[in-house]
Amino acid sequence: MPHLLDWRLLDDATWNGRLEAAVAHHRAGKTWTGSARGKSLAMLFFNPSLRTRTSMELAAAHLGAHVTTITPGQGTWGFAWDDDVVMDGAEAEHIREAVGVLSRYYDALGVRVFASGTDYEKDRADALLHTFARAADVPVVNLESAFYHPCQALADAATLTTHFDGDAAGKRFVLTWAYHPKALPMAVPNSAVLTAARLGMHVTVARPEGYGLDAGVMAQARAYAEARGATVTETADPDAAYDGAEVVYAKAWGGPLVYRDPAREAKLRQANRHWRVTAERMARTREAAFMHCLPVRRGVVVDDAVLDGPHALHLLQAEYRLHAQKAILEYVWDLPPSAPAPVSETLSDEA
Amino acid sequence: MPHLLDWRLLDDATWNGRLEAAVAHHRAGKTWTGSARGKSLAMLFFNPSLRTRTSMELAAAHLGAHVTTITPGQGTWGFAWDDDVVMDGAEAEHIREAVGVLSRYYDALGVRVFASGTDYEKDRADALLHTFARAADVPVVNLESAFYHPCQALADAATLTTHFDGDAAGKRFVLTWAYHPKALPMAVPNSAVLTAARLGMHVTVARPEGYGLDAGVMAQARAYAEARGATVTETADPDAAYDGAEVVYAKAWGGPLVYRDPAREAKLRQANRHWRVTAERMARTREAAFMHCLPVRRGVVVDDAVLDGPHALHLLQAEYRLHAQKAILEYVWDLPPSAPAPVSETLSDEA
Amino acid sequence: MPHLLDWRLLDDATWNGRLEAAVAHHRAGKTWTGSARGKSLAMLFFNPSLRTRTSMELAAAHLGAHVTTITPGQGTWGFAWDDDVVMDGAEAEHIREAVGVLSRYYDALGVRVFASGTDYEKDRADALLHTFARAADVPVVNLESAFYHPCQALADAATLTTHFDGDAAGKRFVLTWAYHPKALPMAVPNSAVLTAARLGMHVTVARPEGYGLDAGVMAQARAYAEARGATVTETADPDAAYDGAEVVYAKAWGGPLVYRDPAREAKLRQANRHWRVTAERMARTREAAFMHCLPVRRGVVVDDAVLDGPHALHLLQAEYRLHAQKAILEYVWDLPPSAPAPVSETLSDEA
Repeated sequence: MPHLLDWRLLDDATWNGRLEAAVAHHRAGKTWTGSARGKSLAMLFFNPSLRTRTSMELAAAHLGAHVTTITPGQGTWGFAWDDDVVMDGAEAEHIREAVGVLSRYYDALGVRVFASGTDYEKDRADALLHTFARAADVPVVNLESAFYHPCQALADAATLTTHFDGDAAGKRFVLTWAYHPKALPMAVPNSAVLTAARLGMHVTVARPEGYGLDAGVMAQARAYAEARGATVTETADPDAAYDGAEVVYAKAWGGPLVYRDPAREAKLRQANRHWRVTAERMARTREAAFMHCLPVRRGVVVDDAVLDGPHALHLLQAEYRLHAQKAILEYVWDLPPSAPAPVSETLSDEA
Repeated sequence: MPHLLDWRLLDDATWNGRLEAAVAHHRAGKTWTGSARGKSLAMLFFNPSLRTRTSMELAAAHLGAHVTTITPGQGTWGFAWDDDVVMDGAEAEHIREAVGVLSRYYDALGVRVFASGTDYEKDRADALLHTFARAADVPVVNLESAFYHPCQALADAATLTTHFDGDAAGKRFVLTWAYHPKALPMAVPNSAVLTAARLGMHVTVARPEGYGLDAGVMAQARAYAEARGATVTETADPDAAYDGAEVVYAKAWGGPLVYRDPAREAKLRQANRHWRVTAERMARTREAAFMHCLPVRRGVVVDDAVLDGPHALHLLQAEYRLHAQKAILEYVWDLPPSAPAPVSETLSDEA
Repeated sequence: MPHLLDWRLLDDATWNGRLEAAVAHHRAGKTWTGSARGKSLAMLFFNPSLRTRTSMELAAAHLGAHVTTITPGQGTWGFAWDDDVVMDGAEAEHIREAVGVLSRYYDALGVRVFASGTDYEKDRADALLHTFARAADVPVVNLESAFYHPCQALADAATLTTHFDGDAAGKRFVLTWAYHPKALPMAVPNSAVLTAARLGMHVTVARPEGYGLDAGVMAQARAYAEARGATVTETADPDAAYDGAEVVYAKAWGGPLVYRDPAREAKLRQANRHWRVTAERMARTREAAFMHCLPVRRGVVVDDAVLDGPHALHLLQAEYRLHAQKAILEYVWDLPPSAPAPVSETLSDEA
């Protein structure tokens, strides 16, 4: 079943093919191809969305497919997820039935289900996403799960590829932690570091002590980088991290600590309010591009001067979401490419 | 006006025609016909929905029609329903205006409005549904009202017809009450018993003392059955009811008692927690098919072993919702059949 | 950028052209033209909607365009609007990013954002609407803002034009304040008085002392009227206002007083509960048409006898919303007229 749950589960040929397709769709512009006419997609958003929902709805429309967007709990039943459950509580339906039924109607399902923030093993295994996928008889697209955000990852990869004229390999990519009033999940930073490493970029993860990303994710990132002659390093210095950077990707996250001791994590986070992307810090870079997945908190995560400055790529990233969604739908439905032939011959193919 | 409010209001020719159309659509598969191009449908869901909303949206899309789904109170105004009301409370709009306006825009309206649970005469007369229909200048489809669920009824009839190779008449159908933490409404059990009787099945309603269905519904079921040489019986034995059954349709309901004395009903319901569909009970049947309209509470209404077993038809029922919706839209819009010619010559035509 | 923020900002040629287009669409009926195929529209409703949402969705569908409807806060993030804000509160995203992103996906954006009710200068300047429009790279349609409702205005103008056989100029139009349990905003009365004046009608605004409309709006209305040889007058007499009226347009509003002293306004409003459109008052008119934008509170704003009587135009007004939306989409996308040629040669062209 051609699910898109997590790019780690798919080989380089698939990853590179989708990256080329996303770039090609971007070049082609907002084209209505109709190549998915007669197909339909249902998306279930257990958490809020602006870009993912709209870009996927529009991508499907461009391809000619029908989309239904469902917000469970708003006009639908609540769902139970666990096996062997006695459902005498608030949930009226098991996800197994819900997904089973929707599999009979639609040709693909999308699901957004964020991290629990309380059960680390469950979150790092993306347990709910995989429960959902097991219940499906049609392809499932991860619209952001506990640990991964493959739609964002593909858009980011295409943005970086475009920004570096087709070859991001060897460029210096800094993922920097940022303060945020909430302990956010790790799907985006996990995906960003894996994406950059898979592109063969030199990756630095800058974060305060106590905010290291998941060990498994970091090991995978290192494996990607090494196979491409690149490196993955970490630092706890919020200033030196910027030195020589060619891309600064900002993101807030609560990290593994929030699972073990949320009170301590909240306190530690407050103590790191100075981890903000400022014009001063950006001045240490090699005119680095600024990236963020959005939504972003102005004046908290990043200063207006950076976001409104000439090196900000966040709107291009968001724009690429539309084109990445088309590339993803073409994958899950095995559609012929509907855009002009891919343009980049330079994408890495090893590992 | 070709409303679909309740199958009881429509003659056998219409009922049989729709049943044949639903079966034919199912055989044709997920086909996009475009036969309703230029038509539009607005659905108002005053109560939650998963299957009804998605199956109708997709059925309309398959036929080429445009659908708008409205959840009153979420992004719209609240509505007043009564005549001669002075609207100085929370409701900003009368249903008469809302339906009048939507009648100017759309070619059909769907509405889901559940039972009040407090006014039995109003609920058994489907007062809100008929208020809605009176205000409409275009056909109205009942997406589940206080007392009837004709979309489910048609899907169930088609499922039974398919399961019994075109002729369900004479088969033994058991509708069994089941425990549920809430006092659910009666639209589905009412519709299920009427459907089975109209198919000429021998119907048994198994329910604890105090949970008898509405006398008018039971009388109508008996009339359908007698005209077809079949029977309708009742029992309060949760085990013996299964003996010889060829279909077990499980459903929870609060029943008329909840209107008269909700506290007593709640207590009585608790005392009947053992009314659950178990593998042991199913073993008393003639390998009966298990049916449920969904959503279903696992471990409460039915055991996993039954729901995940080889005789469960609940997903086929749900799948048939899509095809039944097409047959219903074709009725209200008087469309030519868009699927291959009907296949069953065996559907009952008497009464 | 061909925004439609407020008809005051557009010249008479544009206004008259759109009015003719709306009338022509109405004559053509519910036609599916496909003239906007390949276009897409996203609508953001920060406040509830029934007519505006459904009429715009359907108008776009008739023209062949794709629509996404977003209800911020229901399945999306909350937005910050102010410049130079430090976003450490509840809002997760700035409207500048949200609009920037949607501008990359869609070919036009619609937004409904009601009056604050607390900051009069901000509301009368339509500050949020203009903030939204400044952030957009594509045309923006005002789906009702703090001070204007141009979609309603165009539908009202077309309704009046149709009602008076192509020429409403010189007819007597009364906008009467009505009691309502809430202090409603002024977008509709502002738009109604400007619309009637721009049509060259003799306008009377009947309202209790303390409920005069904004001075700038009244001055603009007078300018429109004078240029067309018509008049704008005001009265505080809830009965005499009806004498000789040919149109009675009812609307409740809180007025400028609610900004300065909400407690006093509430008391004053209660003292004017008798400002209701009754059959007795309508009998003083020259068989005046009754108009209301809806939703309307029966028995509070207007008696059932008037609303259900032969001179009520509220459903025609609502019906015209669909046709006005088509005329508006054709404007913002600069589409060729898709309906039969305009019919009225009599629309005023001066001023």
